Amino acid sequence: MAKDQKVVTKAEKDHFRAELANRQQVIKNAKLPVVVLIEGYSAAGKGSAIGSIIHYMDPRFFKVYNMDVVSEDEARKPFLYRYAQKLPKQGQIAIFDGGWMDATVHGYVSGALTKKEYEKQVTSIRQFERQLVDNGYLLVKFFLEIDEEEQKKRLGGLADRKNTKYRVSDYDMEQNKHFKEYRKAFREFIKATDTGICPWNCIRADHRDLVEKKVASTITAGIDAMASHPHVAELQENPFPMVEFHGLSSYDLTDKVLSDEEYRKELKECQKKLAKLHNKIYRKKIPVIIAYEGWDAAGKGGNIKRIAQALDPRGYEVFPIASPSTEEKARHYLWRFWTRLPRSGHIAIFDRTWYGRVMVERLEGFCSENDWKRAYNEMNEFERDLTDWGAIVIKFWVQIDKDTQLARFTDRQNTPEKQWKITEEDWRNREKWDLYEGAVNEMIEKTNTTFAPWHILESNDKKYARIKAMKIVIQAIEERLANPI
Amino acid sequence: MAKDQKVVTKAEKDHFRAELANRQQVIKNAKLPVVVLIEGYSAAGKGSAIGSIIHYMDPRFFKVYNMDVVSEDEARKPFLYRYAQKLPKQGQIAIFDGGWMDATVHGYVSGALTKKEYEKQVTSIRQFERQLVDNGYLLVKFFLEIDEEEQKKRLGGLADRKNTKYRVSDYDMEQNKHFKEYRKAFREFIKATDTGICPWNCIRADHRDLVEKKVASTITAGIDAMASHPHVAELQENPFPMVEFHGLSSYDLTDKVLSDEEYRKELKECQKKLAKLHNKIYRKKIPVIIAYEGWDAAGKGGNIKRIAQALDPRGYEVFPIASPSTEEKARHYLWRFWTRLPRSGHIAIFDRTWYGRVMVERLEGFCSENDWKRAYNEMNEFERDLTDWGAIVIKFWVQIDKDTQLARFTDRQNTPEKQWKITEEDWRNREKWDLYEGAVNEMIEKTNTTFAPWHILESNDKKYARIKAMKIVIQAIEERLANPI
Repeated sequence: MAKDQKVVTKAEKDHFRAELANRQQVIKNAKLPVVVLIEGYSAAGKGSAIGSIIHYMDPRFFKVYNMDVVSEDEARKPFLYRYAQKLPKQGQIAIFDGGWMDATVHGYVSGALTKKEYEKQVTSIRQFERQLVDNGYLLVKFFLEIDEEEQKKRLGGLADRKNTKYRVSDYDMEQNKHFKEYRKAFREFIKATDTGICPWNCIRADHRDLVEKKVASTITAGIDAMASHPHVAELQENPFPMVEFHGLSSYDLTDKVLSDEEYRKELKECQKKLAKLHNKIYRKKIPVIIAYEGWDAAGKGGNIKRIAQALDPRGYEVFPIASPSTEEKARHYLWRFWTRLPRSGHIAIFDRTWYGRVMVERLEGFCSENDWKRAYNEMNEFERDLTDWGAIVIKFWVQIDKDTQLARFTDRQNTPEKQWKITEEDWRNREKWDLYEGAVNEMIEKTNTTFAPWHILESNDKKYARIKAMKIVIQAIEERLANPI
Repeated sequence: MAKDQKVVTKAEKDHFRAELANRQQVIKNAKLPVVVLIEGYSAAGKGSAIGSIIHYMDPRFFKVYNMDVVSEDEARKPFLYRYAQKLPKQGQIAIFDGGWMDATVHGYVSGALTKKEYEKQVTSIRQFERQLVDNGYLLVKFFLEIDEEEQKKRLGGLADRKNTKYRVSDYDMEQNKHFKEYRKAFREFIKATDTGICPWNCIRADHRDLVEKKVASTITAGIDAMASHPHVAELQENPFPMVEFHGLSSYDLTDKVLSDEEYRKELKECQKKLAKLHNKIYRKKIPVIIAYEGWDAAGKGGNIKRIAQALDPRGYEVFPIASPSTEEKARHYLWRFWTRLPRSGHIAIFDRTWYGRVMVERLEGFCSENDWKRAYNEMNEFERDLTDWGAIVIKFWVQIDKDTQLARFTDRQNTPEKQWKITEEDWRNREKWDLYEGAVNEMIEKTNTTFAPWHILESNDKKYARIKAMKIVIQAIEERLANPI
């Protein structure tokens, strides 16, 4: 077929472009977030395919991301951060012009990634894609194919013209030079990530109009299918190595106390050690994530404060996690944690965490049963991504008994300057103590992975809990420094 | 006085640290946002002063920013962006370890800024600081002074020890080498920015404990003063050159029409031109900001769409502006626009803008009279910062008459697929047409600056308005390309 023969008439083109543009209303009504991933060989026409499909779309509802250049900030975050951060909210479309496939394959072929790192990344990607779909995203993946000769011709054509010369990168030329290697790697990647719920759409990209038609109509069909038949997520078997857990009741709180004198002495020593270690992880660029969960009035705030006091304020951040904002609710529930990750060498302390999903959101019915049951595995996967990246992940459950909580609530109620710390909601939650205890036990049991285990802080005596927390953080950092990964 | 003599007792130190920490409750209750700026000579002890004052603070309520390294993203935004972006919300404290003073003085002395650029920056800073205070922020500025010999000694001490060596930068050594020059420049800067509402606190930094005491007690006193006597902002005289405006009624809408044929032809030509110009501004790194305001149903969406169609999606972004989120309401009202600025070479299109302050927020009573009256000047200052940075700022008012609005509302009401576009609020706003018209006339009159003038788009015929908008954008870009700044 001659290249300039009209295989797609103007009327036909107008039609499929308009059909897709009309789907924006469907997306909006169905509160569907859409991710379109356009991958493919250099010069296969990714950019022009995108330009074409968005032609009739209302620019307020989509965003195109070119992912070529990794910013300094992105380079200091986990591999998937830059994509996770750009996830669209419900009713919006994010189009990635090249994405996690290109970055992974290029990294592997160029030697920047070892075989093992490559495989880890592929696993992360499979999980990430499944999580997107399971959490209500429509994900449409395209791979645009051309052959070696055609690529060479196109790159040559671009490089020859003054106005398009800048569009040919070193990477493009490199890809053509090692075309067979790249082809093999692309195929391997596609095979590894062509899953039932996130299949690839591979398109021969010889003819621009046909590419455009295929891309537009595939997205249109995807939207229609998802809007009429929402995806039902399946629960995954737990694939992660676990540490056994025998329930909160197995922790004796009575004898876990420190005298004022012991406390002062230990605090001073621990803070001194921690300050030194902070300096070391900063220089070695090790990220640390400390997650606090626990009963109301268990003493999370004071515990966090004692750790923070030891740290250089330029190298850590504390995130108090309240109920999600509208922007946050409209996205994957882990999005607000992805976007709060520390840079390498920094410490992020979370005062309440992603585990809200399987506690308050579960018990108050803010998410479906399928949602919270699935979340155990999703959070394990999330934490695995973090530890694979090199992070030390420390999870604390701050434990008190019911009587101690009552005493502290009453004290707050009766002390004017503490009254802001106690709300009606705290009393309501207290009534559900047993339900929460059940949920917490299940949570710890199912997320007590070897790479990110829980630590129970006995906090009937807050001083004891503070010192225990610091010692755990110190030990975790020292172990890592002794055994770098 | 000997250096290691205890000029401040431990009890005293505990006292002023605790006093400051206690103020976090005051800040929270008064919904006060606090900015602390710690400037000073290298090695004057900025870091240790900060470490000390935050010692007892709850880490969930403050954040320390080290501003040394300008990120790639920040380098492509206006000078003040990186500070504006980090503004705390109500009840929070942001502490800048070095800030806009150091960046400006260093830029000037090192020759990176010309005299004229330096002076522009100083003007911006004066305005920025005043705006912060006028908009309810407590701003406390410190300058820590040491002399040449002392600095040399301290830098030498740091450089000699293995663990502190990395803390001495080239800039620090440079500053000591050209100490007198820097001293002169610091003094000039202080003089130029030591205003009645944002005064400097200059502190002799020979003794660490005294610095700490002065800093802590000054912040404490500042919080108490502001919490008990809120600042009342004064209205500024307009200092900007203006273009005359004769009211919306002076625009005749009747004869501003295009035939379908004229429209198609013009649209094609304009989009082609615009696509080329987009490429050019991208390469020349010129940022463009297009702001749309107008009556409900005036045709803003369709107008924006025709411009966006012509653009490379990787180089522009459209921001639909609805009512502010909780995070946004808790900050300076321009914060949500500062954080949405385009990178240099990109285009940002705002579908509704910061002018909401003097329209809906004024008329619905969402801000005080002082707030909206002050806003004209504040928005002119904001836009001046943008044009000084090099941005092309284009402001559109999309104009229709009352009958046309009624016809369009009715059409939306009666057409199922358009019903989402019309709400009760639209009808309520329509009842206040005359009030709005008065507010719009005043707004345009007071913000019609020569550097960011308004353009009225007669949109009874949407086709006419679209072409007019595109031609204005084309002309503005062409003029800039012909006359680079």
